[in-house]
Amino acid sequence: MDLTRALATFVVQSRFDAIASSIRHEAKRSLVNWTGCALGGAHHEAISTALKALAPFAGPQQAQIIGRRERLDCLNAALVNGMSAHVLDFDDTHLRTLLHPSVPVASSLLALAERRGFSGADFLHALILGVEVECRVANAIYAAHNVSGYITGTAGTLGAAAAAGRVLGLDVQQMAWSFGIAATQSAGLREMAGTMCKSFVHGRAAQNGMLAALLASRNFTSSPRVLEAPRGLIEVLAPGSDHEAVIAGLGEHYEIALNTYKPHACGVVCHPVIDACIELRRRHGLAAEQIGNVALRVHPLALKLTGIRSPRTGLESKWSIYHSAAVALCDGVAGETQYADARVQDRAVSRVRERVSAEADDAIRDDEAYVIITLADGRRLEAHVAHALGSVDHPMSDRQLDEKFHALGRGALNREQCERLLHACWAVETLTDVADIACLAGMSQQPSI
Amino acid sequence: MDLTRALATFVVQSRFDAIASSIRHEAKRSLVNWTGCALGGAHHEAISTALKALAPFAGPQQAQIIGRRERLDCLNAALVNGMSAHVLDFDDTHLRTLLHPSVPVASSLLALAERRGFSGADFLHALILGVEVECRVANAIYAAHNVSGYITGTAGTLGAAAAAGRVLGLDVQQMAWSFGIAATQSAGLREMAGTMCKSFVHGRAAQNGMLAALLASRNFTSSPRVLEAPRGLIEVLAPGSDHEAVIAGLGEHYEIALNTYKPHACGVVCHPVIDACIELRRRHGLAAEQIGNVALRVHPLALKLTGIRSPRTGLESKWSIYHSAAVALCDGVAGETQYADARVQDRAVSRVRERVSAEADDAIRDDEAYVIITLADGRRLEAHVAHALGSVDHPMSDRQLDEKFHALGRGALNREQCERLLHACWAVETLTDVADIACLAGMSQQPSI
Repeated sequence: MDLTRALATFVVQSRFDAIASSIRHEAKRSLVNWTGCALGGAHHEAISTALKALAPFAGPQQAQIIGRRERLDCLNAALVNGMSAHVLDFDDTHLRTLLHPSVPVASSLLALAERRGFSGADFLHALILGVEVECRVANAIYAAHNVSGYITGTAGTLGAAAAAGRVLGLDVQQMAWSFGIAATQSAGLREMAGTMCKSFVHGRAAQNGMLAALLASRNFTSSPRVLEAPRGLIEVLAPGSDHEAVIAGLGEHYEIALNTYKPHACGVVCHPVIDACIELRRRHGLAAEQIGNVALRVHPLALKLTGIRSPRTGLESKWSIYHSAAVALCDGVAGETQYADARVQDRAVSRVRERVSAEADDAIRDDEAYVIITLADGRRLEAHVAHALGSVDHPMSDRQLDEKFHALGRGALNREQCERLLHACWAVETLTDVADIACLAGMSQQPSI
Repeated sequence: MDLTRALATFVVQSRFDAIASSIRHEAKRSLVNWTGCALGGAHHEAISTALKALAPFAGPQQAQIIGRRERLDCLNAALVNGMSAHVLDFDDTHLRTLLHPSVPVASSLLALAERRGFSGADFLHALILGVEVECRVANAIYAAHNVSGYITGTAGTLGAAAAAGRVLGLDVQQMAWSFGIAATQSAGLREMAGTMCKSFVHGRAAQNGMLAALLASRNFTSSPRVLEAPRGLIEVLAPGSDHEAVIAGLGEHYEIALNTYKPHACGVVCHPVIDACIELRRRHGLAAEQIGNVALRVHPLALKLTGIRSPRTGLESKWSIYHSAAVALCDGVAGETQYADARVQDRAVSRVRERVSAEADDAIRDDEAYVIITLADGRRLEAHVAHALGSVDHPMSDRQLDEKFHALGRGALNREQCERLLHACWAVETLTDVADIACLAGMSQQPSI
């Protein structure tokens, strides 16, 4: 089967007016969430450090760095904005595969906007198509691949290539080449969890995919069969996977409909536990010192991916289900503050964290959790979360996304600037030039906090 | 075992005066071969195409593109020089692993030379250390990894990071991080064979490794345990590999002593067949039209890696043992000309190529081959090559490397320029500033041919 060509043809020939308004709306929700996350991450130490390292080698100031004063060449802007959008682990998630769809796709698209010049509708269309490509590739490989590598660093690179390739006007042959050039850059090891390098892997997906499309647009050749070939992406990363999954029902439904957004600033597999802990704290008016011990029962992946027992830094704590339960119980919230170094080292939080135990249960869904708290006075409290907030079955509302956007944006822009940018994101379909969003995202005075 | 830290410590603490002169000499041979290959590839269509795509986004003119007029920022120069050095498939080979040692390491080092300013001795030392790191990682993973991915794109990236990190003066912690940042960019699919993208994978190893070192030098954090960790490089790319191989005998012997250089411009696994065909042609004064059929008996990897039956382009023909046998019999040589499109489409060559059959034999070494030719008149001629020219047991002489350098260099520099550059490469240990080599490599008028 000519998988790569079929997917490339779909991306090249897709018509925006054939895509349902509910899908377009979900794409706007993705854009709002991505922009907010990039604002929130823009002044993280990982971003400032990377900018210092990259600046001496960067090209012309072609593209805005979101939430900052700097401008970089398009390729470096895609990298840095992708890193910002991911560094807080607050970005969107395609739950079936744990891919973060918008980071590679939106980061590469917006970085091209000011140089290339295209409409908001074209942006939204390319966003939907890029997400479609990466999630379909991810669907094929995730079972065998996801525990060892970052699927956003592998499949996501093809999503960035598809989106960038679409706005660059690639033909089918060039699009297939761009998938090849992207796929041969697919990388990212899960060992990077808890370090600055995790955001780097995700930003590189945006940059590498854009580079693939730029090379292909000049007729830089690659394999046109990188998905189906015996030594191609799927068989190398996930041997024996179902190739057919890449194109089954192509154009009939859109993967972006399954995109989800996090209410909590950490690995998504922790979220049902956090919801349960917040609910128990609220229901019983718990104070931290009342907690005797906490027993979690969770989907096995929660322990595989967020099993760091004693995190030492904020970044590490995002990969600790123990820390997540502790801050939810102590603070009643699990936002960026709860995953900062100070909270990780706090004595009250540490005390609770040490009293959390966790057990994996194959019978539990990945958006489900059971939490049992034994209080110091011997009382036993229980909670069951069937579907975490932010899951497909219990999505965040548009209003909740707006609130999340403002909470994240206030570190980089003032309230009015946030409001204008947020408005532009929701109105993206009407923009003649999507560079307006880049411009508003960079209208930064020094952070207002 | 603290594998990553042990390797990082070795690179940081190594002293040049503790390295035997025979090892230094082999490093100079590697430099001569790498420089010649980069000159020879500098005007290949893949390089010109990539330069067109990259130029609008590139940074300051910090580093010379070998054999051309252009200058690019250090990171892009590492990419392009790495591509040039590999695009003809004429570069060096660590035969045990099929890694191409100099491409990532020398390409990243020379691209830093003009900006950073360091001596030829420091360059040579870092070259030896970079090759040591990548070949040791390759030794651990090649058995499980090499058939699916380009080992230069994976292990090679760590070699580039080690070399660049050494001349940037990283401490042990930073060096370990740079290995982590490099490893999480490790990529490259064998499906790219026969396309421009193969050279891109190899150039990216140089660029990605350098970027890793630059980020680490700013204290951009990564896992410090990327080699030994359960979701680190070795277990993800080659599960169950022997970790110990990475550090066994570290400092007692040097992997660069096992480096080899190709006399023929194609995949190294074809070389014993080419030697046998050249020998038969010479011995019996054969003309192409006398050939009835040709039977090859080779190591299994030769068919796996160079099994393209009917190549359509020059780049594809480098991965065809059938084409390689045919040009060796028709032309008595297998240089760059024999792997150009014209020779692939030549009717006499095609006729012979179609008459070549090949059989894999587990009992044959990878530098060994048997060739039996049946002539049109029914005569049967046989040749056995025990060790191909350019193998560890039958190395090219320094003189043969000089000849190869001149043959490759003449497409970019005139004879006198080639001579001066070649002299500087052999004299690298005496150079106060290794940027002299970059300068001489770029003293290009238009090609003299």
